[in-house]
Amino acid sequence: MPWAWFPPASSSRGGEPRLPPFRYDRAVVERTVHVDLGERSYSISIGVDILGEVGQEIRRRVEATRAMVVTVPPVGRRYGASVMRSLKSEGVKARRFDVPDGERTKNLQQVSRLYDSLLDASADRATAVVALGGGVVGDLTGFVAATLLRGLPFVQIPTTLLAMVDSSVGGKTGVNVARGKNLVGAFHQPRLVWMDVTTLKTLPPRELAAGMGELIKHGAIRDEAFFEWLEAELEGLMKLDPELLIHALERSCAIKADVVRQDERESGLRMILNFGHTLGHAVEALKRYRGILHGEAVAIGMAFAAERSETLGLSPKGTRDRLVTLLRRAGLPTELPAFPRRAYLQALRVDKKKREAKIRFVALRGIGRAVTVPLLPREIVPPTRAKGR
Amino acid sequence: MPWAWFPPASSSRGGEPRLPPFRYDRAVVERTVHVDLGERSYSISIGVDILGEVGQEIRRRVEATRAMVVTVPPVGRRYGASVMRSLKSEGVKARRFDVPDGERTKNLQQVSRLYDSLLDASADRATAVVALGGGVVGDLTGFVAATLLRGLPFVQIPTTLLAMVDSSVGGKTGVNVARGKNLVGAFHQPRLVWMDVTTLKTLPPRELAAGMGELIKHGAIRDEAFFEWLEAELEGLMKLDPELLIHALERSCAIKADVVRQDERESGLRMILNFGHTLGHAVEALKRYRGILHGEAVAIGMAFAAERSETLGLSPKGTRDRLVTLLRRAGLPTELPAFPRRAYLQALRVDKKKREAKIRFVALRGIGRAVTVPLLPREIVPPTRAKGR
Repeated sequence: MPWAWFPPASSSRGGEPRLPPFRYDRAVVERTVHVDLGERSYSISIGVDILGEVGQEIRRRVEATRAMVVTVPPVGRRYGASVMRSLKSEGVKARRFDVPDGERTKNLQQVSRLYDSLLDASADRATAVVALGGGVVGDLTGFVAATLLRGLPFVQIPTTLLAMVDSSVGGKTGVNVARGKNLVGAFHQPRLVWMDVTTLKTLPPRELAAGMGELIKHGAIRDEAFFEWLEAELEGLMKLDPELLIHALERSCAIKADVVRQDERESGLRMILNFGHTLGHAVEALKRYRGILHGEAVAIGMAFAAERSETLGLSPKGTRDRLVTLLRRAGLPTELPAFPRRAYLQALRVDKKKREAKIRFVALRGIGRAVTVPLLPREIVPPTRAKGR
Repeated sequence: MPWAWFPPASSSRGGEPRLPPFRYDRAVVERTVHVDLGERSYSISIGVDILGEVGQEIRRRVEATRAMVVTVPPVGRRYGASVMRSLKSEGVKARRFDVPDGERTKNLQQVSRLYDSLLDASADRATAVVALGGGVVGDLTGFVAATLLRGLPFVQIPTTLLAMVDSSVGGKTGVNVARGKNLVGAFHQPRLVWMDVTTLKTLPPRELAAGMGELIKHGAIRDEAFFEWLEAELEGLMKLDPELLIHALERSCAIKADVVRQDERESGLRMILNFGHTLGHAVEALKRYRGILHGEAVAIGMAFAAERSETLGLSPKGTRDRLVTLLRRAGLPTELPAFPRRAYLQALRVDKKKREAKIRFVALRGIGRAVTVPLLPREIVPPTRAKGR
């Protein structure tokens, strides 16, 4: 298994059409990212106060006659009425289905409940299955949409920054089983993604930070100019300046869409999106998913991967510090929790992306330039790091 | 919704590459059908006494290091050892997993059991999930392969004629829920299909007949020359002449593969494969899936659809009789069971392929020429047929 090297997003190497160089144009306040996946193509609309227009788009693009809006109570209370009204004003028969808040909701029992509820509502292939909420709601609802009647049209209305940046592109859906997180799932592309940045106003600061980490990740792996812009504008983003948010979301989704377009089923390039995830998953598992958000664990994993990239001689000195500085400014943790080395090794060995014993570890050649390196768990966490740091 | 007309398989209309005309060459005893679906392409091997060679192919084409062979006890007892030995001789770590025989096995509890078993066996993306058996085992195992770790390589070793003809091409996988059959599922193409016609020797006569019905269906909807050949050779096929079987399977799989290639996700052409299914599903549901095989119900549905095609003025007089004669020679029922008309109407209204109220009813313009016609349930079962016939 050789090292795999992927040129940065706006490089023109290899003749593939690439992203245009990142440029920030403050005048633009509403954007659409087109995710080009052949007949599974869809678009992401990003704007301010656009929640009340989603019904029209669902009616127009999905040709839905019915909709099931899946949400969690706190999000449903704030934004449910607006979405339902918008659907009903377009003549779409809409129902709302609440699932409990929290990661535990992503299980096969909730999947089964949702199947029943959709079937009782006479769901057919003109029924839009709409996820209104964060990543948990999106993953669960997407899996149901992927598997009921062998695929129903899926619409995402992410209301957290992490869901906007991460779950809205890629088509990954999934649920947890007793043996681990996201072990059951399917690829199912949404037909429409609708992002209203005003919904971020009610987002708790830690969850906002987790989303910032994902923006930073996209810059770090593929786009140094975007990373530099984040370094310049982070405080404005954290204050939820809508124009900055729209630009950050547009670029970030475009980066991810470009990667996914080239590798929809995660066989090569797409692995770089797992930057920070190898150690991140280990940290989450060791903490038993308590007291740490996924985005926080990934931030720790990114800091670790950047440091490992330097000690492996892959990236220039200073790469790690630059990444860690930005992550910390976003309010994210970057220190590996102090578990024994053997606990980390054990956690790495159950990584579901393993193929034989080696793991495709995502490292950096520098900011904006990710590579995958096949490493054994003991090479990822060498003995010198016996108790974290 | 207009009527949709699809030219027969070997017509050259429309410029699409088409199947070559059907020809029977008795000398050939082993065949491979290539199912062309871009990067999801795979091949179907059809032969005599080839079960012991499947390990080599799984190792070579799937690059599997592990395999989980899912089967039902009666099939496992007969053929399990041969498959397991073949895998182990190639260095593939193989385990066998038995599920109970029968349609009830296709449920979410069995799915969950299989997930756990695969995860406990350290399944990863180099683990082949192998279905050894009939349609139930194939549908269930395929759904697990489609959804565990977002997709594991799936291998089918069908041991019933119906599974060879029907389930081996198309990528449909699925399970039943309390509210209906096959309502949960996913499209997941196998990586390899391996058919040993010697496994048909132990097949009960009714199940053999059900498979014959599916061969007849493929002729009836797309290939009159093949239909004529079936009319000439049916008795030899029923006696399990291996050369005749191999030819029938090859042509039938090629017909289905040609349809699926043009419409992988069932949005148009592929609907013609549902010939006989609208009424067939209704009959199964009304009989509560007891005392009738799926293939028998579809045979009844085909006879009904052929008759309706004549009364609608679509097909020439005699089309129905020709189809019914062949179905009966295969030992299949063709008479609609005597349930009240309103029971049929009720059953049709829950057909999962409905879109609004109209159903895309598959009719014939003649032998080898299927069309879809949008009809309301009351147009499909007109008042004159109040109590079956």
